[in-house]
Amino acid sequence: MDLATVCGILGGFVLMVTALFIAGSHGGGVSLGQFVDWPALIMVVGGGLCVVLTSVPLKVFLTLPKVVKKLLFNKLENHGDLVHELVKLAEFARTNGLLALERSVSEIKNPTLVAALQMAIDGTNPEVITGVMRKEMESEEAHVHVEKKMFETMGKCGPAFGMIATLLGLILMLGNLDDPDSIGPTMAMALVGTLYGAAMANMICMPCAEKIGFLGHHEMVAKEIILDGVLAIRDGDSPRVVEQKLSSYVHMEHHKPEKAAA
Amino acid sequence: MDLATVCGILGGFVLMVTALFIAGSHGGGVSLGQFVDWPALIMVVGGGLCVVLTSVPLKVFLTLPKVVKKLLFNKLENHGDLVHELVKLAEFARTNGLLALERSVSEIKNPTLVAALQMAIDGTNPEVITGVMRKEMESEEAHVHVEKKMFETMGKCGPAFGMIATLLGLILMLGNLDDPDSIGPTMAMALVGTLYGAAMANMICMPCAEKIGFLGHHEMVAKEIILDGVLAIRDGDSPRVVEQKLSSYVHMEHHKPEKAAA
Amino acid sequence: MDLATVCGILGGFVLMVTALFIAGSHGGGVSLGQFVDWPALIMVVGGGLCVVLTSVPLKVFLTLPKVVKKLLFNKLENHGDLVHELVKLAEFARTNGLLALERSVSEIKNPTLVAALQMAIDGTNPEVITGVMRKEMESEEAHVHVEKKMFETMGKCGPAFGMIATLLGLILMLGNLDDPDSIGPTMAMALVGTLYGAAMANMICMPCAEKIGFLGHHEMVAKEIILDGVLAIRDGDSPRVVEQKLSSYVHMEHHKPEKAAA
Amino acid sequence: MDLATVCGILGGFVLMVTALFIAGSHGGGVSLGQFVDWPALIMVVGGGLCVVLTSVPLKVFLTLPKVVKKLLFNKLENHGDLVHELVKLAEFARTNGLLALERSVSEIKNPTLVAALQMAIDGTNPEVITGVMRKEMESEEAHVHVEKKMFETMGKCGPAFGMIATLLGLILMLGNLDDPDSIGPTMAMALVGTLYGAAMANMICMPCAEKIGFLGHHEMVAKEIILDGVLAIRDGDSPRVVEQKLSSYVHMEHHKPEKAAA
Amino acid sequence: MDLATVCGILGGFVLMVTALFIAGSHGGGVSLGQFVDWPALIMVVGGGLCVVLTSVPLKVFLTLPKVVKKLLFNKLENHGDLVHELVKLAEFARTNGLLALERSVSEIKNPTLVAALQMAIDGTNPEVITGVMRKEMESEEAHVHVEKKMFETMGKCGPAFGMIATLLGLILMLGNLDDPDSIGPTMAMALVGTLYGAAMANMICMPCAEKIGFLGHHEMVAKEIILDGVLAIRDGDSPRVVEQKLSSYVHMEHHKPEKAAA
Repeated sequence: MDLATVCGILGGFVLMVTALFIAGSHGGGVSLGQFVDWPALIMVVGGGLCVVLTSVPLKVFLTLPKVVKKLLFNKLENHGDLVHELVKLAEFARTNGLLALERSVSEIKNPTLVAALQMAIDGTNPEVITGVMRKEMESEEAHVHVEKKMFETMGKCGPAFGMIATLLGLILMLGNLDDPDSIGPTMAMALVGTLYGAAMANMICMPCAEKIGFLGHHEMVAKEIILDGVLAIRDGDSPRVVEQKLSSYVHMEHHKPEKAAA
Repeated sequence: MDLATVCGILGGFVLMVTALFIAGSHGGGVSLGQFVDWPALIMVVGGGLCVVLTSVPLKVFLTLPKVVKKLLFNKLENHGDLVHELVKLAEFARTNGLLALERSVSEIKNPTLVAALQMAIDGTNPEVITGVMRKEMESEEAHVHVEKKMFETMGKCGPAFGMIATLLGLILMLGNLDDPDSIGPTMAMALVGTLYGAAMANMICMPCAEKIGFLGHHEMVAKEIILDGVLAIRDGDSPRVVEQKLSSYVHMEHHKPEKAAA
Repeated sequence: MDLATVCGILGGFVLMVTALFIAGSHGGGVSLGQFVDWPALIMVVGGGLCVVLTSVPLKVFLTLPKVVKKLLFNKLENHGDLVHELVKLAEFARTNGLLALERSVSEIKNPTLVAALQMAIDGTNPEVITGVMRKEMESEEAHVHVEKKMFETMGKCGPAFGMIATLLGLILMLGNLDDPDSIGPTMAMALVGTLYGAAMANMICMPCAEKIGFLGHHEMVAKEIILDGVLAIRDGDSPRVVEQKLSSYVHMEHHKPEKAAA
Repeated sequence: MDLATVCGILGGFVLMVTALFIAGSHGGGVSLGQFVDWPALIMVVGGGLCVVLTSVPLKVFLTLPKVVKKLLFNKLENHGDLVHELVKLAEFARTNGLLALERSVSEIKNPTLVAALQMAIDGTNPEVITGVMRKEMESEEAHVHVEKKMFETMGKCGPAFGMIATLLGLILMLGNLDDPDSIGPTMAMALVGTLYGAAMANMICMPCAEKIGFLGHHEMVAKEIILDGVLAIRDGDSPRVVEQKLSSYVHMEHHKPEKAAA
Repeated sequence: MDLATVCGILGGFVLMVTALFIAGSHGGGVSLGQFVDWPALIMVVGGGLCVVLTSVPLKVFLTLPKVVKKLLFNKLENHGDLVHELVKLAEFARTNGLLALERSVSEIKNPTLVAALQMAIDGTNPEVITGVMRKEMESEEAHVHVEKKMFETMGKCGPAFGMIATLLGLILMLGNLDDPDSIGPTMAMALVGTLYGAAMANMICMPCAEKIGFLGHHEMVAKEIILDGVLAIRDGDSPRVVEQKLSSYVHMEHHKPEKAAA
């Protein structure tokens, strides 16, 4: 479970309710019912989904649940562990030869690493390995871009649909101004639409789009590490060189300069 | 028919009417006539079209119906099928020689593939094939860009024209404040302009612009596949190598790593 | 005359007046005088021009009338005709030798083509021709960028100046609330400022900026065609090769694949 | 003095006052005192400066007066004159040898040209000259970018500070609704804040940022010309070649094609 | 302590309070209590933090205090001093040999310089040094980008959360319109939310994001200087050449052209 995503979204709504009760405690109390407006909810969430449906092909739209699942349950792979695994593989290959890695492959979980390593073991040309990996990375990047775009699209049109919900309410109200007492509550109801739009866009869609981009970038770096590592293993580099080459991908703070060892 | 585009747009309006009736059921009911405002419609749709007419040359503007048709009736070509077709062509060329492909060409539907293959059969230089294809791709990309731009332009100025329609209504109203009873309905009418602008921009133009960009990108990848595939066939690559080279264009999930076969 | 630009801008205003009369026909009619507000006009148009004057050097600002003239009276050169002309020149050069082109030069209207051809006839190095042409294209691109920027600047600050005009009106009104009867008309007058700003930005400046960019891009492609064509002529390419090289600049639909001829 | 900048800014304010008096002449006249609001001025100008102070290092912030001076008193160097000067230097170097230029150096005013020429006379490697110049240009570009950013930052937060000033006024007013007669003037006062923000952002900061970018670009082209020119002089190119190479930097219209001379 | 950041932020609030008292002095005085609204504060600050928490992985979110510390206590390293240090090292290496630098390394404070120098002393290949440094720089750049993004995210959603707080207040108010006397103060309270959002975004988050980007760029240039300097030292360049190579990183004004010395 991705605690940050879940806590961030839930936390925002908890804060909203808290703020509401503090604000309401000065007046006559708060009835949360005032903030439930089904037509606005239909307009904001349903409208947003319709826009996404229009803007991407059906096949892509249907991946939306999978994207949501990824957002909630992703587990960021540690780049340091990946470097460590590659260094161990380099050691093993140095001692037992490249072909001996065949046995280790079955124990590796990362599918990209498995595919790249298998190509190296099969004696595939480095250029071909790089080419195949780069194209997979581009393809992956394009997928992440589309996933991010879907949330951004929902986020961008959220306030507009909130405003549409508010306008629908206002127009209805202005057409029936007979009962002055109902103006206040009707107006309040109309404003709930704007509230929903702002909340959906800013508290859910936009940060989720950012997170998707972040997860994609993280995975892309992992693939860079794998590519560089497998190529180094294929060239028979010593584990120390492999570590030196890969450690620069991990941020500097975690990277002890060789000086200490010198 | 592109179900996603059609359902997305219609769905949005169905949701809007649904929300309206739910909202109206609390008050005195809804008369949809309240939401019909011809001057606003003229201003928002006509104004948007005028802006597009100003911003592009006449010749480009006249392609607008074709773009709309493409949006509604496009059929996304499956990249996997394309790869499959190219692999079969590679097999055929391996067995019967490159020139024998001449017969197959007439059965191929994709015009880009036909043109590229014909060049390969004619013994055209790989550099020339690449050059010609790349320029066609650039030219195609520029066209898609302009088509997308037209919808974006309409989408961007939609809210402004909605506001203009509202302002026209408000100014008229403020100039004739004699009859206080008419203020409510006139104000409601004025707000319908804002509603139209927001709906046209967010529910139609913007997602359509996105979809055009998506379709263009999809076609561009197809052309990349064709270019790589035809060059590989020309070089006499084995069908297995062609498949390996091209499969990386298709997303990783659909790509079974060789390991399974090893 | 560029009909698209003229019709687009005039059409927008015709639609606005039409919408106004339809809207007014329900109430007590429309007096167009309600929509004439000299201070707002001074603020929006004059203010916009002042901003452009501040943001570019005087010399560039003074080219504004020429840019407007280009917008209204441009004639898009047909790329197909240009390719045709170059193919004919290639034929002539093939038959009569490069130097014989000297005579044809005087009949060519396109100054870029004349300059490039003259360099080719003079035996200038291809690298030098390319270098000179590329720098001219960059310079041209920079000019188009500045011209576009001027309209974008006016477009971007249009709504702000509209708001400033409205604010000036509102502040005046709020300072003299003695006469309640005048509030309506004064408020209407103030809103006209917002209307002017929105109309100038969305119906004139923004689409004109787009059009300038489009015209510039079109001319840039023409220069690419000329450069490629003249280099091919200089190399003594056959007219058929010249046509093949250049036809890919024209969009695919207009480009008949060689297959038909094969 | 940069007339365009000064006239553009002053002109905007003159137009504003003119518009105000025309608008006021219909009502009871205008007292400019209505438009003076010290708290709003403090908030908009002071707040904007504080934001710039926060967003850049102190050392950069302190260059602000110099940037303002540059904006008001810059004199655009004519690129044509620069080309002319370089052609004359090339002539001199052709006749008297590169080393003889040493004497001319002291008469040249442009410091970049002096530095580049001195390197050429010292027999510095062309690669080193290019490297040194390119890095200076990058460094200069970064400086211009920061200067532009400071004005953009002030421009972007201008409307926000205007709104903050208005909000401060409104909140004060709403807290003391005892005296209904004061609501109008207080509200007017509050709106002056929005006016100041919009005016500062759109009439001063944004166009000045654009101008800074323009000046920087102009200087960058001058340095490109100097670099190309000095390298050509160093290579002993004939003045005619130097002119041909450099003239393409100046816009096409000013560049007479050789055809006329042929 | 970074005086600019601290003064900029504090200064903004001091100006706000000053403006408030000046504005209040015309009316019945100001009670600052009117501007304290806990629910709005919870919504704006808490909501902004929740959005950041959602949009980045937990590990990154937890670096937020460190980023704040960097913002408040950073000390910009002087590039001139760095060049000076590298020139001295070059001199030392010229006289005593590259290996003799081993002793000096322990006295150097800049960890990047230490690591790069140690690699040079160890006789590492220039390509490897460049590769390792470039990857560290990319990694550092990505970190800075994420840090900046966090503040930008808070800045962008600040106004939205301000609006949400205002909407919550308005909806509560509109639901309880019984007491007309409370409308003014409640409305004032609601507007405080908008004020908080605008202030947090424009006075704190946005300029801090800019500053982070600036600090990151400054450090990146320092690393460029170190890389170029260490490579020059490794190649045994004379101190004068090292100075010439590096001085172009420092802005031109501080760079005396060699002419003076010639």
